Parts: sequence; C-alpha cells; structure tokens
Amino acid sequence: MIDELLGDTEIRRAAVAARPDIDPAITIARVSWGVVTEPGDGVAGALIAQLGESEALRFGLGPQNFGLSEKAIEEGRKRWMPRAQPRAIRDALRDAAEVGARLLLPGDAAWPSALDDLGDHAPVLLWVRGDQDQLSSAGSVSIVGARAATAYGDAIASELAGDLATTGTLVVSGGAYGIDGAAHRAALGVGGSTVAFLAGGVDRAYPAGHQQLFERIRESGAVVSELPCGAAPTKWRFLSRNRLIAALGDATVVVEAGWRSGSLNTAGHASALGRPLGAVPGPVTSAASAGCHRLLREYDALCVTNAAEVRELTGMSPTGTRGESRPEPEQVQLLDAMSTRTPRSPADLARTAGLSSERVKGLLGTLALEGRVSREEFGWLRVTA
Amino acid sequence: MIDELLGDTEIRRAAVAARPDIDPAITIARVSWGVVTEPGDGVAGALIAQLGESEALRFGLGPQNFGLSEKAIEEGRKRWMPRAQPRAIRDALRDAAEVGARLLLPGDAAWPSALDDLGDHAPVLLWVRGDQDQLSSAGSVSIVGARAATAYGDAIASELAGDLATTGTLVVSGGAYGIDGAAHRAALGVGGSTVAFLAGGVDRAYPAGHQQLFERIRESGAVVSELPCGAAPTKWRFLSRNRLIAALGDATVVVEAGWRSGSLNTAGHASALGRPLGAVPGPVTSAASAGCHRLLREYDALCVTNAAEVRELTGMSPTGTRGESRPEPEQVQLLDAMSTRTPRSPADLARTAGLSSERVKGLLGTLALEGRVSREEFGWLRVTA
Repeated sequence: MIDELLGDTEIRRAAVAARPDIDPAITIARVSWGVVTEPGDGVAGALIAQLGESEALRFGLGPQNFGLSEKAIEEGRKRWMPRAQPRAIRDALRDAAEVGARLLLPGDAAWPSALDDLGDHAPVLLWVRGDQDQLSSAGSVSIVGARAATAYGDAIASELAGDLATTGTLVVSGGAYGIDGAAHRAALGVGGSTVAFLAGGVDRAYPAGHQQLFERIRESGAVVSELPCGAAPTKWRFLSRNRLIAALGDATVVVEAGWRSGSLNTAGHASALGRPLGAVPGPVTSAASAGCHRLLREYDALCVTNAAEVRELTGMSPTGTRGESRPEPEQVQLLDAMSTRTPRSPADLARTAGLSSERVKGLLGTLALEGRVSREEFGWLRVTA
Repeated sequence: MIDELLGDTEIRRAAVAARPDIDPAITIARVSWGVVTEPGDGVAGALIAQLGESEALRFGLGPQNFGLSEKAIEEGRKRWMPRAQPRAIRDALRDAAEVGARLLLPGDAAWPSALDDLGDHAPVLLWVRGDQDQLSSAGSVSIVGARAATAYGDAIASELAGDLATTGTLVVSGGAYGIDGAAHRAALGVGGSTVAFLAGGVDRAYPAGHQQLFERIRESGAVVSELPCGAAPTKWRFLSRNRLIAALGDATVVVEAGWRSGSLNTAGHASALGRPLGAVPGPVTSAASAGCHRLLREYDALCVTNAAEVRELTGMSPTGTRGESRPEPEQVQLLDAMSTRTPRSPADLARTAGLSSERVKGLLGTLALEGRVSREEFGWLRVTA
C-alpha cells in the first residue's frame, strides 16, 4: 500500500506541502498510520518502533509477517486493512492543509518527548492548530474535571490554572465544558500557555459551543489531536485522548469529577505513567466532588487545595512530610499555669503546673530566651503573643 | 504518704463509699495518683505498672528509690510532692460522691481495655458520670473537629454520628462546641450511645453552654474524665484528654478542623496508636476544612465522605483498594461504532470500529450474552441501557 500511496501524485504533493522539510514517504506513512489505527494501538506502535513508519506500513499492511507475535500482527492487519484507502490518506492531508493544521512527528524539535513515555501507545503523529512549541513547554500541569462542574469547581479550576499560567506553567486540558473550559480560559486570561487535546479532528469544534474558545486557544496556545481531520470523537477516542493529557502534564490535577467521570480515566493514566496525581476536595454533599474523593480514597491521589500545593506536586518526592514539631509538653504545662497579669513564683508555678520547681526554673530560662515569659519583681509573667 | 492517707478516717470512709467492692487502699492510691499527676504522666504509669498503685505511691512519694531511672523518678517525685496533700485526696473523693461520679479503675469489668494501648500513658483512673458500661461498647468511632464549625461541618458530623449510633456504634467525642457537640447530639437523637471525655473534672460543665448537653449525655451515655472533680481544664489537659478520645475509638474521624486545630492533636494520637484515621474533606475555600485537608496531605488520613466509609475505616485493611475493572477497550470501540436504531453488518462495524471482522464477530457474541447488543434481520443493534 505504501508504494501505491507514494505513486499518487496528489498525495505526494500534499505530503510535501504538509512537511516540505522531510521525506514525503515518512509523512505519508505517518498519516496513513494515523488514519488506519485507533489511538494508542500498541501493535502498530511496536511495529513502527521496530521497523520505522514506512517499513511498518509496508509489512503491517502487506503480505509478509515481520517479527512480533504472528497473532498480534495478524489481528492488527485485520483492524487496519478495512481503512487502508488512499482516499482517506489524501483527505487527511487535504483537510489538515485547509484548516492550517500542522503535522507534528516524533523526532521534531517541537515534539513533546513526554508523550514518548507512553511507549508503544505513544501517538504516531499529532495534528496541531496554533503554537506547536507550547507542547514542549518546560513546566506543565494537566487540569481536568467534570463537564457538569459547579460554580465551586469552575472557580477553583480558574484560580489554579490562572495562578499556574501566570508563572509560566503550561495548562493542559481536554477542551470540554466545565472544568476543562475554565482551566483553558483562565490560562488565556492571564496571557499564559494552554494546550487542548481533542478526541476528534482539529477541524471540528467539539463541543460545538466551544468554537470560540478553540479559536482563542489556537491564537495563543494550541489545539491538538492525533486523529485526522474529519474524525468524529467517540467514547474510545475520548478515553485514548486522556492518555495524552496525562502524559503531557508533569502532574495531573482533577478539580471536580462525578463518581464515574471520564476524568478518573485521565487520573488512572497519570498514575500508570508514574505522574503525580492531585485531587481537589469539595463538599461531601456535592456529587461533582465524589470522583475527587474517590481518587483520594482509592487512587492515592494527593489532596491539593491551592496552586502552591499543585507546584509542590509537580516537583514532589513520592511521599508527603509530616507536620512540624509541636511545643514541648512541659512548656505547655508551664505556660498554662502562668498568668499574663499576676506574677507567680517558680514554687507556685510548680504546684499549679504539676512540675518540679527545678524543672520550672529551667523551663522559665528557656522560655525567657524565646521572649515568651518575663521576670518581674514578684515572679514570672507569660508574655502575650 | 499512703499510710497517712489510710489512717485518715474520713478519707477511708469516702474511699469505701466510692468503691465498697475493693480494698480502700487501692481506691485511695489511685485517687491520689489522679490528684498528684498531670494526665499521661509516663513515669507515674511505669511506676504503677511495676509496683501497683499503693506501692508506687509509697515509693514514688516516699524517700526511697525503686527501679526505673533514678533521674526520672526523682523528677517525678518533685512534680508530685507539691500536690500530695491529704486534703486534695479527700476533696477528690468527696466532690465525686457529691455529684455521683463513679470511680472506674483498670481491671474493672467496665474498664475500657482500649485505653491500655496507651501503655505508661494510660489513665490511672476514670471518673464517670452516667453509664460506665458504654465505655467498653463493642464498636466505637471518635468523631472530633473544630469548635468553630460551619453549618456544613455540623450537618456532616450529625449525619455520620446519627448513622453510626443508629447501628449501635458508640460515638466518642470531647464535648466541645461545634463538631463534638453535633456528634454527641446526633447520637443522643437516635437513642444511641455516646461518651464525652472532658479535660477538667466531671463536676463542671466546660464549656458552660453545654451544661444541658452534658446532662443529656449523663442520662443515656457517659461523661468521663481522668481529672478529679474541681480540676480546671487547661491547654495541657485538653491535649492529654485527646489521647483518651483517640484510644477509645476503633477509628478517629475529623470532620472539620482549622489549620492549627486541636483536633489534629487527637488525629496525631490516633495515628501514633495505629488507629485508622479519617478526615472529611470540604470546600478548599473553607478555613474550617483546612485542617482536614492537611490531615489528608500530611498525615495519611483516609478521605471519608459517609458513614459507610467510616465503618469501612474501622475494619479496614491497611491500604485501600483500586476501583473496579473497566470495560474492555475493544468492546468500547465496537459499541461506539454501533447504532441503537440502524442494524449494521459485522463488516461495516469492523471498518467503523477499526477492528477485524473476526474480532467483531467474537465481541458481538460476548456482548449478546450480556444483553448489550442484539441481532436483527439485517445486522446488529446496540441495546439501550
């Protein structure tokens, strides 16, 4: 099939137009893989990793076998063959050119290497509308959550995303209604960077009500998909798209999520990738926070309540730290026994506090050095804080 | 000193009146320890454990040393001696008798053995007003939290305590305003069991505004303290009292707590004792939930959102479990491709879903068995849930 595609003048011209800087055979092979596979097809990934995109296509869609488990590749072929139509490849290239979507390939300077952590499930390509360089920003946080967000969730997502974007952190999300939209908007609002991963082609606005938001993201951020233009978002593609959101963020934070929210899937991907996972708590009476509480209970997510804690998450060690030290018990006993108005003798204090006079004298010395007690003519006073 | 106390007719009579069933020497020794020590005095505890209460008193407050580190016992003596007044012991017994406070001692049938987990810091005695048998109820949960609770916290504490008490769980708390009060009231409201540990003597209502609540608790629950009647609650005594709350509950749940709330101290005791610790999340915008979020972040508390999760906490294994399994990816892909109205052929479905026809046929068989798809004359339909 690859040879047939290479021989097609229109396809070849479109491939050169899409990426004048590289061998059109590579462009065509990648675009073809993007057309024939569903996102995250591990067999295709393994094949491409072993053979390169062109050879993989030649053998994956050709008659011979080549390494890998025979059964896996056989089943892969059966998945891909029904879609291996030159017209589909041509359409993918043409439609992308029409909307100005750029083709980003592994190895490109702008390719986000974080996605390679997905191994055989890494995307074979990305279609990008907007500033592709934002995909490889130095610091990034994925902020996701319920479509049916509450005012509380909207406010928290906005606050977190706005604060993070202000300090140069890329805000990654999925462009959905609710939390995703609030996160993108807040990042845009402070002139920050934001990337939206879509579950369908970058030529369509899904949800349609976010048409304008996507336009704004394209102007100062990037709208990205691994699916060819024209591809409809399906449930599977949403689930697959979530792995890209989880992989691109240095950490993933779920702001609000229902008990069975798709955000839990993104969270699961982040965990599986070893990315730190945060969940924002909310009222236990709010169904929109039930998924976040589930993440705290079942997924070892860390409770995050503000942007500083999210930053801590991105650079965090595996386990949190215990609270700070508390005042010495005997100091508390002694301070309990002291008055801020009536000076008392060490002997008096000893009896009231239930400490020895000697110990009281020692403690008074320490506390005096710290400025917490003062010596008066007729005894000791506690100094008010 | 013990001999002087035993020789005092009034003290002896009061001791017999307090506990006609046991040797008054033991009663007197225990009451004396309760008077001369501050709660949780580990040196006194170790001494009593080694020598018994009477011998411990004889030697602890006498001239000779007896085992233990010389320095520790020396310092202990210096703490206790200023308070070792026969009058104080007499007052403790008389005041308790006046308000009908019963003296509960280790080894008594009603003594809650859970408190023995505190080791040398276990209480030397307990003064109980109300039903002392509730202290050794089979199942118990400590519910504590902020005095300055919000309506949200009050509602959640009431819901948890009411639900737990309905099914026979003892609700333990500290009798304070806010969460503690809400928990006690809810337990009383459903005719359940509840125990309030006070930081001062059981003859005084602290806070004074809870006078009536304490009366109600005494009628159908128990108000308990290790401090003698007349003792004022001090900061140290609140902190010490917290260890009893933490030790008596099979688990401790913090409902609302400010960033530096005393409830975190109770939580710390529960953790130190190896008791499961739960925290109820709340809005991150609520200062009254900041301590709970801190427990989730820093103390490995488990997020609990309802009574069922609290029950799970009391009988829980050390780590939570992951969420249930998700549908197979290929099933999702296939169902995405199916219509509930237009029957489609396996070949059609294969192309749309990006799966082989063979695989589609296999999946359709499985899904048909589960009743999720149906075979029609001209193809397959997805069954609406």
